[in-house]
Amino acid sequence: MQIGIVGLGLIGGSLGLEFVRQGHQVWGVSRQPQTCQQAEARHVVHKASTDLFSLAIPTLDIVFVCTPIGLTLPTIEQLSQILLPSVVITDVASVKGAIVPLASQLWPLFVGGHPMAGTEQQGIQAAQMDLFQNRAYVLTPLPTTPPSAVDCLAGLISHLGSRLVVCDPFSHDAAVAQISHLPVMLSACLLSSAQGMPEERRKLAQQLASSGFRDTSRVGGGNPELGLAMAQYNQPALLAALRDYQTHLQYLTTCLEQGEWGSLSDLLTSAQQSRPDWIDPHKGKES
Amino acid sequence: MQIGIVGLGLIGGSLGLEFVRQGHQVWGVSRQPQTCQQAEARHVVHKASTDLFSLAIPTLDIVFVCTPIGLTLPTIEQLSQILLPSVVITDVASVKGAIVPLASQLWPLFVGGHPMAGTEQQGIQAAQMDLFQNRAYVLTPLPTTPPSAVDCLAGLISHLGSRLVVCDPFSHDAAVAQISHLPVMLSACLLSSAQGMPEERRKLAQQLASSGFRDTSRVGGGNPELGLAMAQYNQPALLAALRDYQTHLQYLTTCLEQGEWGSLSDLLTSAQQSRPDWIDPHKGKES
Repeated sequence: MQIGIVGLGLIGGSLGLEFVRQGHQVWGVSRQPQTCQQAEARHVVHKASTDLFSLAIPTLDIVFVCTPIGLTLPTIEQLSQILLPSVVITDVASVKGAIVPLASQLWPLFVGGHPMAGTEQQGIQAAQMDLFQNRAYVLTPLPTTPPSAVDCLAGLISHLGSRLVVCDPFSHDAAVAQISHLPVMLSACLLSSAQGMPEERRKLAQQLASSGFRDTSRVGGGNPELGLAMAQYNQPALLAALRDYQTHLQYLTTCLEQGEWGSLSDLLTSAQQSRPDWIDPHKGKES
Repeated sequence: MQIGIVGLGLIGGSLGLEFVRQGHQVWGVSRQPQTCQQAEARHVVHKASTDLFSLAIPTLDIVFVCTPIGLTLPTIEQLSQILLPSVVITDVASVKGAIVPLASQLWPLFVGGHPMAGTEQQGIQAAQMDLFQNRAYVLTPLPTTPPSAVDCLAGLISHLGSRLVVCDPFSHDAAVAQISHLPVMLSACLLSSAQGMPEERRKLAQQLASSGFRDTSRVGGGNPELGLAMAQYNQPALLAALRDYQTHLQYLTTCLEQGEWGSLSDLLTSAQQSRPDWIDPHKGKES
């Protein structure tokens, strides 16, 4: 197939590496000339350009928009001026409700996508083969999305080794708010409350912090721009998840305050018992 | 030295392995005959018994009480009937304020201790060499604790490769509440709120849960008895940490609700910037 990729960071670059390996013809676009050079040198794409008009290729089949979230819609709007109407457009943004309906208005053959792949490292340097292996790759078509466009994308994804998950944009956002965006906010608040300790006590706590603190604070210590974008673009779903979480935390706090050890024990036991349902499906599949 | 260890689980067993390796004479006590057999077979101790009176050895120098927290004080009380007054007693409980003053009344040569070593696996099967390597080992003497007892224990600890940290029991409990017990409670509530999602949405979320959810939920999915003991024995400090955390979480929620993106960005940026102070001291030193 003839594939365009706009934005050659971790996700766009990793998609390019896979598509080139699989024998597709891949054109890349990046705002940075240096990124274009690196992309060609590393065989992430066959040809890279800083000019979006380089994708005005009559034989192009599909374009992946892999820019930061805030540039997804503006990029699709620009592409709509350039591409033949037969081209499928998809994106990789981690929120879908704020993007898919508008993008579908701009471009009927738009299919929202979200590969659930790691984002701790950034940039084309971080691009790697097999990033999508055994990860969920979510597609969020609307009832109006042509099935042929979904099939085109689903076919490509199946060759990435991803687990294809199809749902509507708003269910996606609620699920992702709970399992990805909420943990980031909880984890950031853990760091912020720890940092707010009186100095002497904080220094002692820093000496004692170990693997439990390290793991629980990992996603909260990540890229703040990404965290902010989650909040801005997934505001209602994240707010609902935060409020629900606060209810659970208040319940636990009340148990502790009133010494209701049986209830607290039940909560901790349920937590332990439920965790495999959230973790086991991926066991051994992630680094 | 002549060393007694009461409780041959992960911590007691790992201490035994180290002390035997270092050429000390080690006696173990466990309630389970099977554990005693395994302890001798694995050279965790030289001799193991189910009878605490087996530690009535005239030449004994020090006893490590490595039972579950709830048995720490009863064990010290029993030991006080048996040991010569020259023997140092120490414990490994993860809370100190609820134990050290009472234990010191029972036994003047008591020195509170807390090796900050992993607790995900349990039992003598999990005992291992080098568990304490580069980990903090906290001692919490009182002003009345004889320096000779602290020195005796500190000498042994230095040969474990641990980082010795000395502080008072209540500073220890406040620090540990923040960096260990609070993360467990936050993490358990994350699982409990995720589990409370409507069924269809929960199943979707389970398909999408990835490394962020896995890491943030790890300590909350651990041994509920240990979590309950943290709550019971470190109640005031944990409650203070939980209330302080709730203030930070409410602030973040308000930022999100009111679209105060600048403030939210500041919070996330501070979190990212502060994390190395909590993690870097241990970098590369933990699995």
